[in-house]
Amino acid sequence: VVSKLPQTGTTIFTIMSALANDTGAINLSQGFPDYDCSPELIELVNQAMKNGHNQYAPMAGVMSLRERIAEKTEKLYGAVYNPDTEITITAGGTQAIFTAISAVIHPNDEVIIFEPAFDCYAPAIKLMGGVVKSLALEPPNYRIAWDMVKRLINHKTKMIILNSPHNPTSTILHKEDIDELSAIVKNQDILILSDEVYEHLIYDGEIHHSMARYPELQQRSFIVASFGKPFHATGWKIGYCMAPEYLMQEFRKIHQFLVFAVNTPIQYAIAEYLKREETYMGLPDFFQQKRDYFRKGLEQTRFELLPCFGSYFQSVRYNAITHDKDAEFAIRMAKENGVASIPVSAFYTKGIDHHVLRFCFAKRQETLDKAVDRLMKV
Amino acid sequence: VVSKLPQTGTTIFTIMSALANDTGAINLSQGFPDYDCSPELIELVNQAMKNGHNQYAPMAGVMSLRERIAEKTEKLYGAVYNPDTEITITAGGTQAIFTAISAVIHPNDEVIIFEPAFDCYAPAIKLMGGVVKSLALEPPNYRIAWDMVKRLINHKTKMIILNSPHNPTSTILHKEDIDELSAIVKNQDILILSDEVYEHLIYDGEIHHSMARYPELQQRSFIVASFGKPFHATGWKIGYCMAPEYLMQEFRKIHQFLVFAVNTPIQYAIAEYLKREETYMGLPDFFQQKRDYFRKGLEQTRFELLPCFGSYFQSVRYNAITHDKDAEFAIRMAKENGVASIPVSAFYTKGIDHHVLRFCFAKRQETLDKAVDRLMKV
Ligand SMILES: CSCCC(=O)C(=O)O
Ligand SMILES: CSCCC(=O)C(=O)O
Repeated sequence: VVSKLPQTGTTIFTIMSALANDTGAINLSQGFPDYDCSPELIELVNQAMKNGHNQYAPMAGVMSLRERIAEKTEKLYGAVYNPDTEITITAGGTQAIFTAISAVIHPNDEVIIFEPAFDCYAPAIKLMGGVVKSLALEPPNYRIAWDMVKRLINHKTKMIILNSPHNPTSTILHKEDIDELSAIVKNQDILILSDEVYEHLIYDGEIHHSMARYPELQQRSFIVASFGKPFHATGWKIGYCMAPEYLMQEFRKIHQFLVFAVNTPIQYAIAEYLKREETYMGLPDFFQQKRDYFRKGLEQTRFELLPCFGSYFQSVRYNAITHDKDAEFAIRMAKENGVASIPVSAFYTKGIDHHVLRFCFAKRQETLDKAVDRLMKV
Repeated sequence: VVSKLPQTGTTIFTIMSALANDTGAINLSQGFPDYDCSPELIELVNQAMKNGHNQYAPMAGVMSLRERIAEKTEKLYGAVYNPDTEITITAGGTQAIFTAISAVIHPNDEVIIFEPAFDCYAPAIKLMGGVVKSLALEPPNYRIAWDMVKRLINHKTKMIILNSPHNPTSTILHKEDIDELSAIVKNQDILILSDEVYEHLIYDGEIHHSMARYPELQQRSFIVASFGKPFHATGWKIGYCMAPEYLMQEFRKIHQFLVFAVNTPIQYAIAEYLKREETYMGLPDFFQQKRDYFRKGLEQTRFELLPCFGSYFQSVRYNAITHDKDAEFAIRMAKENGVASIPVSAFYTKGIDHHVLRFCFAKRQETLDKAVDRLMKV
């Protein structure tokens, strides 16, 4: 058969997690915690199953969950979404991203993405016959050069994909970015796909500049969020997409034939869990403590710490250690030093390699201690 | 925005289930049971969560589940699949179907489907730029006219989609069909997508002619199956796809960017549950009893019973009652008689209406009794 995605191999997450398993390395590569989700949440799923919520959910999701999401969004960002027509529950953030792209990208449509980029954007665009226009960002700050964005825009530009807090670089959009973006899309037929799965993982009192805060951006945006990441249950595969009705209508046309609906008992459980806002309001502090602890540890190593404003990733440059390619170095470090990381070049399509590795710090303190001990010997 | 699927509305399942909810009609429309899954299965999910299986599963699925699937497939159908490279766990049968189509259908490729057809095939084909070549089957027997299939085949034919036991008609493939199919695809570059989600729901001692039984078909087939249907937990959204490695490789390229992985605790639970073959070997009897009971009831009505060899659906013709279109009649019956069904014309793309309704009989005996009581008054 002729491949639809000839350049696609296995994701770097699969490769590095498998390497960690094989070598016994501490796995700071793929983004997931090594501690468990709340026992209360587990019990809520158990209760939902025992209460007989085991058959198909409505196509767009369990209504009580959509209502809780609408409330949370209004409270945090001021935007009013209609749970009936503007919110859909998905099998994780990835399914939401794939579905949004499928719903609006036609052959030859251009989509602007910023690299390093989460690795599912480009394949989904290509699969729909779209054209990826990528702008490479540079360490240490990975700021978006908006004048370069302006130059990429033409009549074929259909969408810009944003991701804040950003994976893998841990940067966030600032108010200046929002202003620049608003000026650029004004009076243009350009949609936004805003990947906000790390919305609650933001530090130092910074605010999350969700597209939902800015009506002129909100009305052209698919906003994607996740429960797996904030609630320490990445294996439950539950997320959602919010968009104004004219976009959500197209999203659901795909969603209903792609997966039809999403796991029912988990939807009931999260709807219940979201009733108490402590379940998510405490997350920035929880993760900031881990970030600060891990950074303090890393300061004792020869790695150069890059800024971390959000997400649960910390990136480092290693020019003081070696000039090897990041993929080679990451593999060697997993094998010889027992710490698995993600080489950030995997998030660039054009072979760009800034000698940066990404570590996930959503780990128990003793795991971070042990990792730092090992990294000190690198 | 320009719609990717301009002719697509909301699925008939969503419409009829919503109508049943609104009117309080007995819901024999969408295919799901009104009794619960096994408490043992629920407890297995609970235990998996409590044992900490709450983070990302491997992209292709939890290995123990893939191994159990390989064993079951070999035992039932004689085919040996490598769990490492030829089996992938999916978020239900629908996701598996969408992914298989996405993985191999290029623009202008032709795909042969038989109508009435489950409603997710055609949109997935169109979304990939493929061309749907549909062959309409006729009640009461809905047999495939293989000479017509032969005439549809040309150098653009990329795939044939089969579905046995068949939704919505409850027919099954017989050995003669397999022979005809084998002769047709022999020496041709034609793939098969075999939707076998009702594999265990087959009656009167008939055998399920899985593509896995026939090496020359198996080596060109994506086989899709489900756990939600047989295990009475349609809301858990778990199924799988099996295919030879050269096809599974392409399937996983899409799967990893479409959903990445599937709910982890449910995979562990089903892996455990499948260890005892009674969990699925008793299913034909369990459902045949319901089929026989429901058919006996329907014999007292003015509906004409069509054959039912498999699946948990029973179709009826209603020419003795009215000559109204099936959609109108189904809506009126839900409102006035309190029984919701699926009008089978919804499964034809060309407006074909044979005046057939589909009922789901995966219901408690008292529900079937009550439904028959009401249907006797139609
Ligand atoms: C979808 S698997 C990868 C998890 C993740 O978001 C990451 O490690 O970047
Ligand atoms: C995917 S929802 C529909 C369930 C079903 O298979 C049917 O009713 O035909």
